[in-house]
Amino acid sequence: MNLGTCYYPEHWPQEMWAGDAERMVEMGITHVRIAEFAWSRIEPSRNDFNWDWLDNAIETLARAGLQITMCTPTATPPKWLVDETPDMLAYTAEGQPRRFGSRRHYCFSSESYRAESRRITQAVVERYAKHPAVTSWQTDNEYGCHDTVESYSPMALRAFHKWLQNKYKTIDALNAAWGTVFWSQEYSDFSQVDFTDRTVTEANPAHRLDFQRFSSDQVISFNKEQVDIIRAHTKADITHNVMGHFTAFDHYALGADIDITTWDSYPLGFLDQEWWTDAQKLRWMRSGHPDFAAFHHDLYRACSNGRWGVMEQQPGPVNWAPNNPAPRDGMAGLWALEAAAHGAEYCSYFRWRQAPFAQEQNHAGLYDSNNVLAQGGIEAKRAHQVLDSLGPLKPYAAKVALIFDYDAKWMFDIQPQGTGWHYEKLCFEFYTVLRRFGLSVDIISPHHELTGYTLAVAPSLPVIPEDLFNRAKKAGTRLFFGPRSGSKTADYQIPKLSSFKDLKHIRSESLRGGAVVDVDMDEQFYRAKIWRDFVATPRNCRARFDDGFPAYVEAEMFDYVAAWPETKWLRALLRDRLESLDIPTYWLPKDLRIRRSEDKVFAFNYGAKDIDVTRFKKDGEFVHGSGILPPAKFCIWTT
Amino acid sequence: MNLGTCYYPEHWPQEMWAGDAERMVEMGITHVRIAEFAWSRIEPSRNDFNWDWLDNAIETLARAGLQITMCTPTATPPKWLVDETPDMLAYTAEGQPRRFGSRRHYCFSSESYRAESRRITQAVVERYAKHPAVTSWQTDNEYGCHDTVESYSPMALRAFHKWLQNKYKTIDALNAAWGTVFWSQEYSDFSQVDFTDRTVTEANPAHRLDFQRFSSDQVISFNKEQVDIIRAHTKADITHNVMGHFTAFDHYALGADIDITTWDSYPLGFLDQEWWTDAQKLRWMRSGHPDFAAFHHDLYRACSNGRWGVMEQQPGPVNWAPNNPAPRDGMAGLWALEAAAHGAEYCSYFRWRQAPFAQEQNHAGLYDSNNVLAQGGIEAKRAHQVLDSLGPLKPYAAKVALIFDYDAKWMFDIQPQGTGWHYEKLCFEFYTVLRRFGLSVDIISPHHELTGYTLAVAPSLPVIPEDLFNRAKKAGTRLFFGPRSGSKTADYQIPKLSSFKDLKHIRSESLRGGAVVDVDMDEQFYRAKIWRDFVATPRNCRARFDDGFPAYVEAEMFDYVAAWPETKWLRALLRDRLESLDIPTYWLPKDLRIRRSEDKVFAFNYGAKDIDVTRFKKDGEFVHGSGILPPAKFCIWTT
Amino acid sequence: MNLGTCYYPEHWPQEMWAGDAERMVEMGITHVRIAEFAWSRIEPSRNDFNWDWLDNAIETLARAGLQITMCTPTATPPKWLVDETPDMLAYTAEGQPRRFGSRRHYCFSSESYRAESRRITQAVVERYAKHPAVTSWQTDNEYGCHDTVESYSPMALRAFHKWLQNKYKTIDALNAAWGTVFWSQEYSDFSQVDFTDRTVTEANPAHRLDFQRFSSDQVISFNKEQVDIIRAHTKADITHNVMGHFTAFDHYALGADIDITTWDSYPLGFLDQEWWTDAQKLRWMRSGHPDFAAFHHDLYRACSNGRWGVMEQQPGPVNWAPNNPAPRDGMAGLWALEAAAHGAEYCSYFRWRQAPFAQEQNHAGLYDSNNVLAQGGIEAKRAHQVLDSLGPLKPYAAKVALIFDYDAKWMFDIQPQGTGWHYEKLCFEFYTVLRRFGLSVDIISPHHELTGYTLAVAPSLPVIPEDLFNRAKKAGTRLFFGPRSGSKTADYQIPKLSSFKDLKHIRSESLRGGAVVDVDMDEQFYRAKIWRDFVATPRNCRARFDDGFPAYVEAEMFDYVAAWPETKWLRALLRDRLESLDIPTYWLPKDLRIRRSEDKVFAFNYGAKDIDVTRFKKDGEFVHGSGILPPAKFCIWTT
Repeated sequence: MNLGTCYYPEHWPQEMWAGDAERMVEMGITHVRIAEFAWSRIEPSRNDFNWDWLDNAIETLARAGLQITMCTPTATPPKWLVDETPDMLAYTAEGQPRRFGSRRHYCFSSESYRAESRRITQAVVERYAKHPAVTSWQTDNEYGCHDTVESYSPMALRAFHKWLQNKYKTIDALNAAWGTVFWSQEYSDFSQVDFTDRTVTEANPAHRLDFQRFSSDQVISFNKEQVDIIRAHTKADITHNVMGHFTAFDHYALGADIDITTWDSYPLGFLDQEWWTDAQKLRWMRSGHPDFAAFHHDLYRACSNGRWGVMEQQPGPVNWAPNNPAPRDGMAGLWALEAAAHGAEYCSYFRWRQAPFAQEQNHAGLYDSNNVLAQGGIEAKRAHQVLDSLGPLKPYAAKVALIFDYDAKWMFDIQPQGTGWHYEKLCFEFYTVLRRFGLSVDIISPHHELTGYTLAVAPSLPVIPEDLFNRAKKAGTRLFFGPRSGSKTADYQIPKLSSFKDLKHIRSESLRGGAVVDVDMDEQFYRAKIWRDFVATPRNCRARFDDGFPAYVEAEMFDYVAAWPETKWLRALLRDRLESLDIPTYWLPKDLRIRRSEDKVFAFNYGAKDIDVTRFKKDGEFVHGSGILPPAKFCIWTT
Repeated sequence: MNLGTCYYPEHWPQEMWAGDAERMVEMGITHVRIAEFAWSRIEPSRNDFNWDWLDNAIETLARAGLQITMCTPTATPPKWLVDETPDMLAYTAEGQPRRFGSRRHYCFSSESYRAESRRITQAVVERYAKHPAVTSWQTDNEYGCHDTVESYSPMALRAFHKWLQNKYKTIDALNAAWGTVFWSQEYSDFSQVDFTDRTVTEANPAHRLDFQRFSSDQVISFNKEQVDIIRAHTKADITHNVMGHFTAFDHYALGADIDITTWDSYPLGFLDQEWWTDAQKLRWMRSGHPDFAAFHHDLYRACSNGRWGVMEQQPGPVNWAPNNPAPRDGMAGLWALEAAAHGAEYCSYFRWRQAPFAQEQNHAGLYDSNNVLAQGGIEAKRAHQVLDSLGPLKPYAAKVALIFDYDAKWMFDIQPQGTGWHYEKLCFEFYTVLRRFGLSVDIISPHHELTGYTLAVAPSLPVIPEDLFNRAKKAGTRLFFGPRSGSKTADYQIPKLSSFKDLKHIRSESLRGGAVVDVDMDEQFYRAKIWRDFVATPRNCRARFDDGFPAYVEAEMFDYVAAWPETKWLRALLRDRLESLDIPTYWLPKDLRIRRSEDKVFAFNYGAKDIDVTRFKKDGEFVHGSGILPPAKFCIWTT
Repeated sequence: MNLGTCYYPEHWPQEMWAGDAERMVEMGITHVRIAEFAWSRIEPSRNDFNWDWLDNAIETLARAGLQITMCTPTATPPKWLVDETPDMLAYTAEGQPRRFGSRRHYCFSSESYRAESRRITQAVVERYAKHPAVTSWQTDNEYGCHDTVESYSPMALRAFHKWLQNKYKTIDALNAAWGTVFWSQEYSDFSQVDFTDRTVTEANPAHRLDFQRFSSDQVISFNKEQVDIIRAHTKADITHNVMGHFTAFDHYALGADIDITTWDSYPLGFLDQEWWTDAQKLRWMRSGHPDFAAFHHDLYRACSNGRWGVMEQQPGPVNWAPNNPAPRDGMAGLWALEAAAHGAEYCSYFRWRQAPFAQEQNHAGLYDSNNVLAQGGIEAKRAHQVLDSLGPLKPYAAKVALIFDYDAKWMFDIQPQGTGWHYEKLCFEFYTVLRRFGLSVDIISPHHELTGYTLAVAPSLPVIPEDLFNRAKKAGTRLFFGPRSGSKTADYQIPKLSSFKDLKHIRSESLRGGAVVDVDMDEQFYRAKIWRDFVATPRNCRARFDDGFPAYVEAEMFDYVAAWPETKWLRALLRDRLESLDIPTYWLPKDLRIRRSEDKVFAFNYGAKDIDVTRFKKDGEFVHGSGILPPAKFCIWTT
């Protein structure tokens, strides 16, 4: 795996560039990403291009032997462009144009901005596509960051009308799909359809879902325009840096259009900012949740046919989370090795040097703002040494897959039907149990081929693809479903026929925090929370709720757990199923995770105390570290 | 009591209608409400009426012997009408027109929409007033749902100006009533008055109160226009379905214009959504709060001279509360019987069949979306059997009334003067104590005749009607007042003279959560919370706060408790007063409630365990159930 | 110290005025503030002045021997003026003009309103400047109340552009200072700069800081216009009444333009409303936090060269806090004496008589709305008697100063970098420790002369003034810094060189609630929370964090504590430093505070129980009260 960094020559005097490049190389860095926010320096006013500084910067880096990831600068259109093209602005749900002054203020549906995006992409690509040091390209930066996938502009509305027309052909088809007869909402023309925010009460859920799908598609097609221009000039890899805990567009679709999906990994920032419990946030304050990075590594590996990397790796405290503690010494290196273990081609630290000004001045770099080597830099160098000693790592072929679906996320966001329901959290709870079994798993879309997987676990899959059971049968894959699976059609309606053989939904209920339903399985007592399905089945059931309704159904082709299971129950369910499929399991301590490559096993300590890993190591030899794993350390052994 | 259901023929193929009607009759249902959201099907474009389907639906239901409640469809004006008449839209407090896409998007003050409302009402009434199966009419649907009583449109402002002119005649009178000399707010013309939202800080409270009264009056007059049109064509009963926990318009005033007040009873949804404590929400998760439905039954019984019913009865899990658990088996039937015990003419389940699409697709029906009988349907049939066996129930003449006032609610909302103050909660706490005494009470307005009541309890009544004490004297009714009573004039000022003989307010204080004031009464120790009045009285006081100020005043005509009493103290106060008036009391368990009709007593178990009710049954014979009452069951005995 | 009251003759019939004046005098009141909200009565329509009533009111008060504080009525421009001059309105951050209907609806940047402000000031001053009873003037009322310092109007934007141009001269200088190269935000003209609210994500922090500084400056210059007009006609004292817990403009700058800074002291209202913990809010519910009034007395004493007073003193329950309990009997008098002990010239109760109408009708007065003497009136009279017996009090020259900086507050509000960070709270925690040592301290700006101070404590000072160390050296003042001190330049950048000799910042971290870092000092165990700096120093350190980084640095000229210390640690640090400087300390109980004048010591009991103060009294004689101090009482002894 290569190491990289994100560098902003425009922030620093030209005199510093050569020294920077030299020290990068010394640190083991081979790749540098540049220029994703540099539009105002590249083109200070329309068609007044200023390439000199960038030519020089590229030359300086190239001369030191570094490979460059060149970016299109479209995430930060400059002020003159906004003033000249005001209809490029995204609109808020309240109907106001977004304001210049930070970033991502453009509307994906603006034809004017798309023209500008193509124009500047063309200009940058023409300039640098042939440069031998420019070995890869990044489009834009973090599509959707700061809730910018959705725009409520007049342009977006027109584009939405077109999208609907394209999908439904006739307005009657739309009326039928959405069920607009409900509440007298029937349309006679696509142009009558409005946004769904700011309605008096809840808008039609199918309408909302289509708006989300449309908004996602606009991101994909915006990106595709840049990709096409780049591809026309070069065969270099094209990437885009997606984010963690972000689901507002379909990452499988984006990944299909690029060569390699990269993502921006900030384990501490996301722990503090997201939905983890207070206890989790305190426990892993200095390490991040032990499944956070792994989950996204596994997810984004699926997006571009297995090619993926980390474009931005947290090197120290960041500036943007509610609270910003320092990582435990060692973590910034551990995270890089974890990416390598999951099969990354690339791990790039953000940023080379801390900026002394503007919004991110409190964000650590590998060097501090006064150019003193920071903790992140020390660890990057150490990570390089280990990576160097390991040589190339070959990927592991996982036997177990977890099914993650963006459409499901959107559907549940639209009608959660209970305050506790949280699709991503449910997926993480399933993923954590699988990982604590010591497994290395893949995360896939419900439309992914199943060949090679012994078990595919869908924590919840409201819409069952028509061919899923056929694919599973062909692949010999056992399917395991969580609650609410099969509860909807793709049009956001209740299916006329059950999605399952031998299982029918009767009704469902959501439970407030603190409410549980008791479960009896094999004379053991378990509990469910948050959600419960009432189902009927002709099959015998090992587990029933205390009112006698089935809690767990083992059908011919699949398992179905009819509630959100507490961990103890989920562990029992999955362990039995894995055992029956001859997949052996451990039960790792809370702070320990294991990930294997083709011929090596990596163990990572996310906790604050030493962990003895020898009982999880059946054979092989240590090639890094040893059996007693200190905090923030990893060890590696051969299989 | 009759059973009914809400039916949407427009959602289903015509082939299903006859079978539906047949099964309704089998279930014991006699009444069907239809068409309240069917405008887009009745009139797909202006004056292009499509009556055929509705004629057929009515014929099909009538043929099965069902009586029909026909509705005006004005709660959901269709898209073409909104596009043709944009000034029909209500405006948000932020000054934006409401958006089409859900329901209730119209402005009560829009003259354009009022014309449309009269036009469609006229059309529907002309078509169906003479149909023998159409035995009652419902105007619109749930006025005010989703905070739609208030509108901030230009039309509303003009109408508000007229309303003010009509009330005050001269601007000087308004200035005096509102005290606009404060903060230089004097007006020289009614047209200068603006809305009160979005002021820099708190607006004038009398101004806010008048806007609330105006907004309420607009609902009443909107409704009256429809009522007048219907009455011109038929003598059938006219109703409107009001809601629970909803106070934004004066329901006494609305009820006076219609024949029968009906309401929509969702015990689980409202428990989860409203201000109940977490402990209450968990305890009664599957039954609803034992006083929720009863309170509204008793309140709405007062609105149309004793004629009332339930237009929508929760049949299973709903879709719109934060959390939506399933009712305990039995509750859907118990709720109907409880309505009967309180004197309802009518209890109608919402809805016949779960919709498979649109906003409410997760809302249970008596049948599920695939036409399989659901738990609600099973219970409706059982309820019918019990009701049938009981025969007609005659109403009970209550000796105790609780005074509930919409003006009071608005006043306190405008200046709560303490975070804990909650008028409706205070009323519920008083009501619960009265009900745990085993009493069957009435809820009345402060302007209601008092004849027949031995005791009238006003948990808080800021404005004492001038003739209240005279009415009480004539009727021989003892008055019992809670805190803040008599503290305001109708103009939202502090009265110049005390509202009471032998009692003067000195000052008041509000107490934050956790703060209490100790009370000493008859050498017992009690506590007050949330609110405390400092009062002076020449009378001896049984109860004093620990600083010596009177806590409870027993005057010649009335009692006054000078604080928000904790339950233990309130129980002691009211028990003594009831005993002195020869009204015997029990103290029922938390989960048990009793309600009597003229010659029968009903006991309802809202808890999760059996309750022995024999100790609350002095004499009589069981006509349903027996002494040990299981969860979600009721028993009935003769008096 | 003089006693005063705030009086509204316009609210009451003229017949009551003489009696009011007479009873004021009887109560010991010598000063009356009038007319700050009377514009609509002074000028009912443009140029239609109605002076008669005000002439009469002044005559009536003057005849009774009262001195009058006359106000400019600009805080409440009347409706006719708003209608004639709509561009006088302030705008919200959402871009909407503020609405008439409460107060402070004007924009400080509106040239139209400034003209109106000068016109009405001129008119009032011309009328009353020469009146012998008008001995002082107040400009406007509570600048900034209800978040009105910032306005987002077109006028404000234009004024901001001018302000920026004036500050930076060239746009390049602005670009450099703000670091606009970050995220392509470079400007080519001042007119391109927009507001910073409603940006997609965080706007540039230097941009935000400059907008705050600009907004503050607009208040100062608005006030200055009125001051200049008043000064042109009279030599009477000019004041403005500022608020507690309010920091949106620079009070040092405002105070420099007036003769005497007064403030509005509502100890209970602010306790309930502000950031104190629930436990503190319950403990001091009836007294206010024991450091609340004192902090502001000490702070505002610094603003106008030591001349200060209390313009509005809470007399009983107020109306505007979330909860409004009654003060413990005695507190309304204690607060006045505490102001005297801190050196106030003046303490004025708000208001003479409770208003029976409008927004503040639940706000207590010295008399109630029906003209009955209230508890506040009783206590004012008692306070007068004590003050009378004491005679004039001379100020005490404090040896310890606490440095409080408005720029620091704004910087930290813009980038708190942690949810727990709260500049004012940190300052209060330091101030409380100093006060519990029994010290009487000054609060000063970082630019204040240090002469006379043995120790100056800066709880946090991000920008160290260039001359601070020189001033300290000259004055012989030891400096004591808290965390984040020296971390920024005035341009909101990270300093290129360390602000300190022998101390360098490496990085920082913020800690979520519940997270702590252990500290080892002198073999004792302490803890830090919320914030931690990683620093390097060549000096020996008495205190280190558990990872070995310095926790406390004692340099030649200063101390630096590199974290937010828990009270126990802060107490140990400051006690040692004070001892080394020969300043003796006590450790007062939680509810007791001591403040000295030149030759007397005052002790105040803020608690609910008696406190024995004799152990804190080394010598001297009691001149009021005695050694056992009951709740809400004070005692005074000579030094």
